[in-house]
Parts: sequence; structure tokens; C-alpha cells
Amino acid sequence: MLGSVPTTPKLLEDYRPIIGDERTDEIRELAANLRGARVLNVNATAFGGGVAEILGTLVPLMNDAGLYADWQVIRGADDFFNITKAMHNSLQGMYYDWTPEKREIWLNYNRLNADLFDESYDFVIIHDPQPAAIPTFLEERLGRRDGKWLWRCHIDLTEAQVQIWDFLRPHVARYDAAIFTLPAYVNDDLQGPQIFCVPPAIDPLSPKNVDLPRETVDGILARYSVDPRRPMITQISRFDPWKDPLGVIDVYRMVKAEVPDLQLVMVASMASDDPEGWDWYERTVRRAGEDFDIHILSNLNGVGNLEVNAFQRAADVVVQKSLREGFGLVVSEALWKGRPVVAGNVGGIPLQIVNDKIGFLVNSNEECADRLLYLLRNRDEAERMGSTGIEFVRDNFLTTRYLRDYLRIFCQLSGKTSEGRGLPAGRARR
Amino acid sequence: MLGSVPTTPKLLEDYRPIIGDERTDEIRELAANLRGARVLNVNATAFGGGVAEILGTLVPLMNDAGLYADWQVIRGADDFFNITKAMHNSLQGMYYDWTPEKREIWLNYNRLNADLFDESYDFVIIHDPQPAAIPTFLEERLGRRDGKWLWRCHIDLTEAQVQIWDFLRPHVARYDAAIFTLPAYVNDDLQGPQIFCVPPAIDPLSPKNVDLPRETVDGILARYSVDPRRPMITQISRFDPWKDPLGVIDVYRMVKAEVPDLQLVMVASMASDDPEGWDWYERTVRRAGEDFDIHILSNLNGVGNLEVNAFQRAADVVVQKSLREGFGLVVSEALWKGRPVVAGNVGGIPLQIVNDKIGFLVNSNEECADRLLYLLRNRDEAERMGSTGIEFVRDNFLTTRYLRDYLRIFCQLSGKTSEGRGLPAGRARR
Repeated sequence: MLGSVPTTPKLLEDYRPIIGDERTDEIRELAANLRGARVLNVNATAFGGGVAEILGTLVPLMNDAGLYADWQVIRGADDFFNITKAMHNSLQGMYYDWTPEKREIWLNYNRLNADLFDESYDFVIIHDPQPAAIPTFLEERLGRRDGKWLWRCHIDLTEAQVQIWDFLRPHVARYDAAIFTLPAYVNDDLQGPQIFCVPPAIDPLSPKNVDLPRETVDGILARYSVDPRRPMITQISRFDPWKDPLGVIDVYRMVKAEVPDLQLVMVASMASDDPEGWDWYERTVRRAGEDFDIHILSNLNGVGNLEVNAFQRAADVVVQKSLREGFGLVVSEALWKGRPVVAGNVGGIPLQIVNDKIGFLVNSNEECADRLLYLLRNRDEAERMGSTGIEFVRDNFLTTRYLRDYLRIFCQLSGKTSEGRGLPAGRARR
Repeated sequence: MLGSVPTTPKLLEDYRPIIGDERTDEIRELAANLRGARVLNVNATAFGGGVAEILGTLVPLMNDAGLYADWQVIRGADDFFNITKAMHNSLQGMYYDWTPEKREIWLNYNRLNADLFDESYDFVIIHDPQPAAIPTFLEERLGRRDGKWLWRCHIDLTEAQVQIWDFLRPHVARYDAAIFTLPAYVNDDLQGPQIFCVPPAIDPLSPKNVDLPRETVDGILARYSVDPRRPMITQISRFDPWKDPLGVIDVYRMVKAEVPDLQLVMVASMASDDPEGWDWYERTVRRAGEDFDIHILSNLNGVGNLEVNAFQRAADVVVQKSLREGFGLVVSEALWKGRPVVAGNVGGIPLQIVNDKIGFLVNSNEECADRLLYLLRNRDEAERMGSTGIEFVRDNFLTTRYLRDYLRIFCQLSGKTSEGRGLPAGRARR
């Protein structure tokens, strides 16, 4: 057996007050069709990264809904994980010399993990490329495989290095289904599995998103010398060129010329083994100079999930001035707090912001400054957009919608329907 | 027995080309008088901090010179080390509530360590306050103590909180000798032990100080985009208010007005668990703003001892604009590289810089800028000062002088003289 990952139990009913009866009951009905189904999630790591975060919520909610869901991690040594890291980068477009030796190492570890596979499941979800060849070797060993197999790809394949995708594709082609984040991430030449799209989601009960009393928010602002009585905008993002932290400061200065008491709070998570991150942190602080209405914060100043939550809630407008973006789920995090968001029109951001309704999509510093100024000067409009944003996230980007999509896919793959509601499962590829 | 610390062997003869025959032979003669003497150093930690660094050189050199030197660390748990940390701070003037319970914990751990003491030595050097009561409890247990006992105090006691010094003093009073860094650090009411002063020293063969080929220096400068053809000043110091990093930048700007191609390199060592250090790092980067002729570097950019060595060697002038200082040994490190130093007239700095001969002591930004400008404009004078500085450090602040001082003290305490040379030992208190 692979390494099983323990999770903290979660109750679907805790989400009912947030998502309402209709959505909760839809999940209950879908789950009723799947009662007792054995579901296994397999990925490469129990800690760190978005996949582990999602599984930590999804697996216990499936269990609470009446399925038997498990989460296991594959086994591997450094040689394997170095190769899968390179594979990950190559699938996103970086060049990598994919020698026969390296292919062999990857295949051998997949064979080893297939050999450790000693139970049957109704649904096996293999996450990302690392363990993608497990069904290949399971069939080789047993002459069959039980249950439905789903490959859950969390990355954008459209720029994939051909050499590596050609190597990976035959293994992926054996799956019953492949689930992508966005239709745009699917590589066109993937034939075989049924394609679904399930965008990511936020957990409204996590410390990053849970509702906070005003006193808690004010206490956190006071701790970092941010004045709650003065207007404030915030961007929560790594310091790297694609998040344009220097542009954020330039935009802030353009707006501050009109709104002199404006404050800017920039928050990032810094890792001590990331020299490029440090360079950009330093570049950002230098651009800020000695304007102490610009607050540049990170884990080094004790800022964690709860503080990020507070700064988002306290902001008059949230900025996400990305020049390039994956999905950019931080936009939904901000919208969920009722804040209008002004964000770069890139990656998954346009899926989260209905332009002019719950925020603004912008393509330049000037546009960004202009929309920020508009929202700071039209508070009623900003509040209205914020309220609309909450409902949009409730409909589309909560973890319960994510759960529902998976249950729908399971129903569809196993020929069960959810009593005429909500099919086709997930969002079928157009 | 306490925990013995292994050290890397060092050869006194490796220092002969650096310090010359006369100084080497003096050490050989002193050591001949002490041949076979058993010396034990006891301190609180095997890693980190100046004391561990000094012992890592002193102990192997004593062994090479013919003594039997050992280094052991005391045992203790968190409760003890929390108290000794507070004790250290109180002895430097911070207030601390020194309850009977806390005194008891300190005494108990000292008793425990005295119980572990199972050998006889000719000289026992107890470093700093943590293990200071060991001889008290050794005498209590055995009714005697063997050999000469020396308390080596590395901190300035003149601001010590009275309560804690009154508690510590009776233990210190039992020693045969007490060694301080500077006469100014001795607390006047210490009676009993013979008082010696041994200032700190640098190891000319360590990576921080060893001679480097010009190509190595240039390679390191190129790696950090510092132009070797343009004038450069450097300060190597933690980012904290007493090292005045903001003042350094202000001074640089004053000089740059006259020397437009001037560069400034500031290097610090950053610890991830030091939020105050991060605040000052940020303050410094903000003051630098987007003047990229100011290079702000640290271990986060991969700067270690070797890089510090290179930046010191490459500097036209080294700055140490301290407003408050312990000994400030970094001044001798810079002088040893033949650079003139402009430094704050505080702490141990005036002992290392003969004003107007090997650098300048300054009391304000204006004075600092004025002297820097003078040295940048009078290159021959700067070179002359640099050369004088090397000789001053060779005479006074190399690790071999430190070894010699200890050997002299051992001779004096045991009634042996070093054939009419160099006594009285160390620098007797005036």
C-alpha cells in the first residue's frame, strides 16, 4: 500500500449556512447515488502546495457525504522527485533534456508504486503527472484494472514541451477521464479519456477565508500600523515580475496624487531558499522608498493566513495586478470578503471577475489607477460590486462546488444520474 | 564529564610567515615553560557566537604548542538557558526580575555541572557567567579545587544590574584570575581574583581574513554587479540602530555629491527568527531607494565569510559608523586587508584605530563624509594608512597575540616567567 495521509474530519452541514439548502441538498442527492463508493486520491506530497490543500478539504467532505474516500501519497526517492519536478516544468514549457535514463527512472518508480497498489476502488483519482503511469503498470501486472480511473491535471498543458508530452500522453490516454482546471489548459491531441473541467475553489471555513469580527481586523491593522480610518488598497502576492509589484506601487502613487491619505498594503510569503524572491522583495522595497504609507509585509513580520484575511477585509479595494497568471485564486479569496477587485486581464482572472459588475479587468497602469480612483470615489458602487462578488464566488468558487463537480463526474462515469439535476457533470469540454 | 568539543588541528608554524620569527619564537618559549600543562576551557555552546569561534582556534593552537588543551560545554535544559540568556542581558544593563526560583535553577545546574567535573587540570578557564559557580560547588563537594581557575568574561559589566551582579560576584570572587576584554569593562567592586585584560583577535588564516587573489575578488564583485573600476566604500554590520545603517547611506549621498561614480556595499548576516533585524533591513533598503549603486547584501544573496573578505579587500575605504559598539572587531578585519577605516569613536573602536594614522574616528555624519572624501581624493595617503593598519593589527589583534596573552597569564599564575620577556602578563589593570 502507498502512504495514507490522515485528514481532519469536516462536516458538510457546517457549509449549509454558507451555501444554502439548495446547494447542500444537491450535494446530498449526488452523494446518495454514490453511497459507499470507494474513492482513492493519489498524489506526490502530503504537505505544501495547492493540491495538498484541496485534498485536505475534499477527502473529509466526501467521507462525511457517505463515500469512502482515501488519500495516499506515492513513494519515491530524490532521483525520482528531481525528474518529476523537471517534468512539471517541461509540461509548462521549459526545455529539459529528457534522456532515456531519466524516462527509465520515472517509469521504474511508477512500476514500483503500481506494485504497492493492493486494493480495488470504484474511483481512483491520480493527481498530476508524477504518478500518471500507475494504471499502465497495474494492467501490465494484473491484466486488468478495477474501477474508473481519473487523471486530475492541475497544470496548463498548452505550452508543454512536445518530447515530454509525447512520452506522457500514451499513459494518460488509458484513463477513463481527465479533469483539467480550465478548457484552455487541455492539450488538443489528448484522445481517449472523457474530458472534464473543474476550476479550483476556496474553503470559506479556512483561516484565510473565515469571517472575522471587526475588532480582530482592527487589532491586526493596529499591529502593523495601518490606519483603519484612512483608505487602503492591498495586493496579496509573491514578489515576482508576473505579479508586477513595482507596477502596483506606481499605480498607488498615481492614485495617491488624488487621494493623499491612501495606504497600500502588500503581503507576500517569503521562502529562505528563494534568492529570486529576495531580489524582488528588495526591488519592491526600494521602489516604495521611504513612503511609510506603503506597508510591505510577509511571514518575516509574522503575517500568516489570518492576517491576510484581515487585510483583504479591511481594504477598500483589492488589487491583483498580474501580468501573467495561472488561475489567480486569490481574486476569489478577496471577492469572498465583499471587496471589489481591480485585476490584470490575464490567466484565470477574467473567469472570476465579471468586468464592471464585481470589479474591473485592466490592461495598463493607467487603467488600473483610473478604476481604483473610481471605486475609492464611488463608495456605494464599490459596496454594490463587493456584494455581487460574494454571490459570484458562492455560486462558482467555493470548495462545495468543487465537491459537487467531482460527485457529478463520478455519477456520470458510473452511469448514475443525479435525478435530473445539474448534468452534464462538471463542465464538458466544448 | 562535560561534553567535549572536537576541534580541527592547527599549526603554529602556519602563522610564522604572517607574524614573523620573533613573535612565533616568543610563543614557543612561553609554551616551553608550560609543556604538558593541562588546560580546560568550559563554555555554554559549541556553535555560534564569538566565544565558540575563538576557542575553535585557541584550543588547537595550544595543543600544537605543547600543552594539553581541551574544550568542554556544560549541560543544561531550556529552563537553564532561558535564565542564562536573561542573566547575560541583565549584566549588560537590562532589567530582569531575578526571583529566588530563578536563582535556584541557575545554582542547581551549576551544581550538576560541578558534579560532572571528574578530572584535574592545571588551568581551568570558565567562559562567561553561565558556568561561573562551578568552582563554588566543586569545593563544596571535594573540599578543594585543583589547579588555577580563570573566569573569562567576554561582556562589559559596567552597566550590570546591581541585583544580579551582587548575586554573581561571590562566585567570581573565588577565582584565581578574571580576564576581561578591556579595562573599561571591569566592574570596580570585584575583589579577589587577579585581573587581566585580553582584547579579542582575528584569525588571519580564516576564510574571512585569508589573503585572496585579485581574480577571486573581482569574480565576487562581478557576481554582485559591483564595478571594480569605480570607487567603492563598504560597511559590514548587522542592520540595527547602533550600527547606523541609515546614517551610512546619508553619508554616502553626501560623498556621492562630490564623487558621482561612488558605490556603497552594505553586508549583513540575517537570521529568520529576528523580526527587529528584518525591520531594520527594510528601513535600510527603503532609505537606499532605487539608487542601485547602493548594494544591500546578506546571506540571503549568498554572501558569506569569503564574500565579506572580498568586499573589504575591494573597498577604497571601509566604514564602521557605529553609534554604540562592543569591541567592533570588524574594524581590525578591515585594517588587516590594508584598507583605511573611518569609524565611530565608540566602544573598542578607538583601541583599533590610531586616529589620523590608520584611519579616522568620527562623531557625526558630516565628519564621516569629510574623512571619506579626503581618503577618496588622496589615494597615496589612503594606501599609507592602509599599510600602517596592517602592521597595527599584526602587533595587536591577531589570534597569535591572543594565544600569547593566555600563555603569559598561565606563566604568571604558576610562578613561571618567560625568560625575562614580555611580562607582566596580558595588560594588568591600571
